[in-house]
Amino acid sequence: MSSSHAFDQAINLTPISNNLYQGKTSEAFQNMVGPFGGTTAATLLNAVLQHPQRLGDPVSLTVNFAGPVAEGGFEVEATPLRTNRSTQHWLLLQKQNGEVVTSATAFFAIRRETHSEQQSAAPQAPAPETIPRLDISIRNWFKQYDFRFVHGILLMPRPAEQPSDTESLLWVRDYPERPLDYTSLTALGDVFAPRIFLLRESFTPSGTVSMTHYFHATSEELAKIGTGFLLGRAQASRLHNNYADQVAHLWSEDGVLLLTSTQSVYFKE
Amino acid sequence: MSSSHAFDQAINLTPISNNLYQGKTSEAFQNMVGPFGGTTAATLLNAVLQHPQRLGDPVSLTVNFAGPVAEGGFEVEATPLRTNRSTQHWLLLQKQNGEVVTSATAFFAIRRETHSEQQSAAPQAPAPETIPRLDISIRNWFKQYDFRFVHGILLMPRPAEQPSDTESLLWVRDYPERPLDYTSLTALGDVFAPRIFLLRESFTPSGTVSMTHYFHATSEELAKIGTGFLLGRAQASRLHNNYADQVAHLWSEDGVLLLTSTQSVYFKE
Repeated sequence: MSSSHAFDQAINLTPISNNLYQGKTSEAFQNMVGPFGGTTAATLLNAVLQHPQRLGDPVSLTVNFAGPVAEGGFEVEATPLRTNRSTQHWLLLQKQNGEVVTSATAFFAIRRETHSEQQSAAPQAPAPETIPRLDISIRNWFKQYDFRFVHGILLMPRPAEQPSDTESLLWVRDYPERPLDYTSLTALGDVFAPRIFLLRESFTPSGTVSMTHYFHATSEELAKIGTGFLLGRAQASRLHNNYADQVAHLWSEDGVLLLTSTQSVYFKE
Repeated sequence: MSSSHAFDQAINLTPISNNLYQGKTSEAFQNMVGPFGGTTAATLLNAVLQHPQRLGDPVSLTVNFAGPVAEGGFEVEATPLRTNRSTQHWLLLQKQNGEVVTSATAFFAIRRETHSEQQSAAPQAPAPETIPRLDISIRNWFKQYDFRFVHGILLMPRPAEQPSDTESLLWVRDYPERPLDYTSLTALGDVFAPRIFLLRESFTPSGTVSMTHYFHATSEELAKIGTGFLLGRAQASRLHNNYADQVAHLWSEDGVLLLTSTQSVYFKE
């Protein structure tokens, strides 16, 4: 590990045998119960990225948060399930004391130039520099990001005449700044709070159970962004009987769509 | 297997040992290469649904199409990775000759009544009875569905002045009719063709590599729909360097959101 950035420390893995890695949770990215899920997702992706058999770049990643990740060490098993000529499918299991705490599948591919077309334009938003950084330090991991909310801050009173809406629109980047790569993009795709918090003024137990990222960004596009802000939008389609979905997108500052992400999120009542 | 419906035959599995099932591909649901992916996804979900250790109903399902499924027999390994008090995480592997052709993860839960709110209203659409059934029999599996397109039929010439758009809006149900359940809803969530076909007038090799379903519908809601039509909408956010995403929703005829689905779809050029 070459970087001393808190994010690189959080996702750091040590190879211990074929397909097996060891890591440990990070105090800096602590959430209410266990670490911020975005860090866990990035750690699992990181196992593939540093695996000697890895082919190509990430195209899709699904992470299932099966149980709480306890503070301390964990193992990541990264198994290539199938390797084709230019594509590769992975199974990833994060374990503590032999028990699965997180499962994931990842799809990697060598991508070639094709017809390219963006159907979802970036929403209009004031420049990030014109919006003050949101100071929310109630969880450690919040402090690792520079949030500039355009609208949809969680747990805020809503005027009675305003219809209930679960959309958030915000600028975000790592704090302190860190050049964007697939691991940080993975974590940034999980910075949107459970949408139920947009409908409530008080806290309710809630947490992601499954998250899927589709990476549109090529490594060239990521390199071009560097430490720039990303524009993120997230919205639920339906919240019903303990579970809500959430569809999110992340664009670069010049409007290139980098990530499409969906989550299924538990909420208690 | 109690039903002689072609869909029930296609997803039928025979338990052969602990966590292991045997099935075979269906001529009726044949696609260009291998079976319709929706049938494969439904078959994998079916392994969990009939597993003696299954807890609750499906909340999320991710299916990774790792390689072509050859005509004939296959095995499905269904492993409960983690069982909590009211939730359960599954790993599903479809194999032929010992090789993984499809991998999947599923999340099941016992759901309780909570605050319920639908944020994505069903789009306006003329009643399905007022639209003729689309007669597309170029693939076997098309014939197993009753498609009534409102807009966004694939491979159709587009007026020059009309902006390129990847949205399809359509009514769909099983043909012949079959009461809706979690398996058929799973397959119906995959009836949207690759979005690249909305931008082209001629065929290009294309296929889903990963698909994620979030089930909003409870079993009571499914039972209430019976054999009614579902309204489906699908759209790509970005198509770039061989891969496109696709965000889809399925509503009941009376506007209840049943499924949120996303796909990552390969296209050749």
